[in-house]
Amino acid sequence: MPNPRVTLRDVARSAGVHPGTASRALNSERRHLVKGETAERVLQAARELQFRPDPAARSLKTRRSYTVGVLIPDLNNPLFPPIVRGIEDTLTPQGFVVLMGNTDNDEERERRVFEGMRSRHVDGFIVATARERHPLLDQAAAEELPVVLVNRILVDGSFPSASGDDRIGAHLAVAHLAQLGHRRIAHIAGPQDLSTGRGRLHGFEAGMAAAGIPLDRRLIAFARGFTRAEGQRCLIELLAGPGDFTAVVAGNDLLALGCYAALELSGLTCPDDVSVVGFNDMPFIDQLHPPLTSVRIPHYQIGAAAALLMLERIADPRGRVDSRLLPPELVVRGSTAAPREPRQE
Amino acid sequence: MPNPRVTLRDVARSAGVHPGTASRALNSERRHLVKGETAERVLQAARELQFRPDPAARSLKTRRSYTVGVLIPDLNNPLFPPIVRGIEDTLTPQGFVVLMGNTDNDEERERRVFEGMRSRHVDGFIVATARERHPLLDQAAAEELPVVLVNRILVDGSFPSASGDDRIGAHLAVAHLAQLGHRRIAHIAGPQDLSTGRGRLHGFEAGMAAAGIPLDRRLIAFARGFTRAEGQRCLIELLAGPGDFTAVVAGNDLLALGCYAALELSGLTCPDDVSVVGFNDMPFIDQLHPPLTSVRIPHYQIGAAAALLMLERIADPRGRVDSRLLPPELVVRGSTAAPREPRQE
Repeated sequence: MPNPRVTLRDVARSAGVHPGTASRALNSERRHLVKGETAERVLQAARELQFRPDPAARSLKTRRSYTVGVLIPDLNNPLFPPIVRGIEDTLTPQGFVVLMGNTDNDEERERRVFEGMRSRHVDGFIVATARERHPLLDQAAAEELPVVLVNRILVDGSFPSASGDDRIGAHLAVAHLAQLGHRRIAHIAGPQDLSTGRGRLHGFEAGMAAAGIPLDRRLIAFARGFTRAEGQRCLIELLAGPGDFTAVVAGNDLLALGCYAALELSGLTCPDDVSVVGFNDMPFIDQLHPPLTSVRIPHYQIGAAAALLMLERIADPRGRVDSRLLPPELVVRGSTAAPREPRQE
Repeated sequence: MPNPRVTLRDVARSAGVHPGTASRALNSERRHLVKGETAERVLQAARELQFRPDPAARSLKTRRSYTVGVLIPDLNNPLFPPIVRGIEDTLTPQGFVVLMGNTDNDEERERRVFEGMRSRHVDGFIVATARERHPLLDQAAAEELPVVLVNRILVDGSFPSASGDDRIGAHLAVAHLAQLGHRRIAHIAGPQDLSTGRGRLHGFEAGMAAAGIPLDRRLIAFARGFTRAEGQRCLIELLAGPGDFTAVVAGNDLLALGCYAALELSGLTCPDDVSVVGFNDMPFIDQLHPPLTSVRIPHYQIGAAAALLMLERIADPRGRVDSRLLPPELVVRGSTAAPREPRQE
């Protein structure tokens, strides 16, 4: 007859392994995480001690599928692969696998991917597609399905999130340009219904204030998307406006690539006429002409942090809602230089 | 009492929908693919007709999880995101979701990811990590688990596969250079235990023969990996050897980036001193200096073709083993030009 007094800890001690290892070996879904020989030793100890897991604990455990759904807008956007790797590299050693879905920011497609994952009983969702209004998030919250946001924050802080500190990033960009002697600095802001767009605009404003440069609202253009085409359109708009800026902080690297194109079309050169700073430090921008100065967001670490928040959330779905803001750094390359005629102050 | 004579087709007719739609509506795992109102109509028709699915057919169906495992070496390699998108965009409308795992070409990690997916009863594996010897593939084959290779082919054709036609691609690159007047053309070959490395070398040789240029084996260098560092090492090796080549066909774009670096280190310019052709047409190489001429491999379509092969394989695990070779195209940009001193023939 099974001995109800025998605990997992007893089995682990008898097999000479850590209780976590014993737990994995006794779970058929997670056994593959343990060396074959070790698993055999644990199973034998469990048999000898007539170990039977506590039924309540067992039911809690078996309710888990050890899968996590990851919703992203588009894997072809180069910031998402490192985020997904960070998530996977953190979840895999814990016995989880990752279900992945691209939504293209299309509401109907997102609903289908979400339902497809939910019907496979994922333990939670890591979501990079959050806009301010998001019915799926409300639904998940109502069902107490763990949700963690990655690369996004909601204003009301209603979900745990992991993202780069966009304010500090934009602040760093402005400080670098101010130190080079720039005073007329433009900003191409990303969409304001995305936290990355808002955070970078606020950081730009804060950086200008910290550098003692009065803000000229005519030097701020708003992109309708984080795309090369929008970057080009916005810079041409800024050149047609006041036009007297010597540097521009682009909301991300694709917008910065659009600035390169607009400058070339206008017969201007970077950095001689206009310095450009991007955001994200995408692969290969060090090979551009000129190599792009960019705010490096630690995307891999952001993915890893989101996965850790998910593990905490699965363990305690009603725990504290945590936000992790990871610090960016500025990578200075050839696209920024002192303005042609530094102003005498 | 259920009426055993009523078929799915009868239910579909009564509900006024296609039998495929009726089948989805009657399957709780796939019902989300059908509009709510339509599903309700089908379910009501089934109730009215006392429809009960054939138990044998049902057991065949419920054995499926409608999940497919995708194994890739590293999502950060820019050729994989479009492949994964092609797979997902093809499988999702059929009610499947994608489990994704990165292996880093590490055997132990690959085994863990594979076991993790298998224990979740995936319906099959799409594998981009295949080398010539691959114990996991043998194991999957022994268990009659559908496996489709993507971006890889095995010499013995033992698995269905979808990939770019590497021979035609390298052939196109050589023909372009020969037409510009180049006769001394070097090749940096990728690893020869990967089908992409072998296929491109063979295509290079065939292209040279077709252009009537005798092959000089001293102008072929072998990279140990498809990396920028290896491209740089190999080009420096070639320059230190015969050195009199005016063009190089690099086994992929990262190797070509290494060529750029090696040329700069050697005080040579591209394309004035050496023309360079890459392979893959990665994002943003049109922004390099000079923009890179490259063989465009249709990665998205390759992913989609692999997914279609998987659907066929799931439907008929013992069906014919098909290989799909998708045609590449050459995208000519600024890194190729006529040699400085065209030879008079």
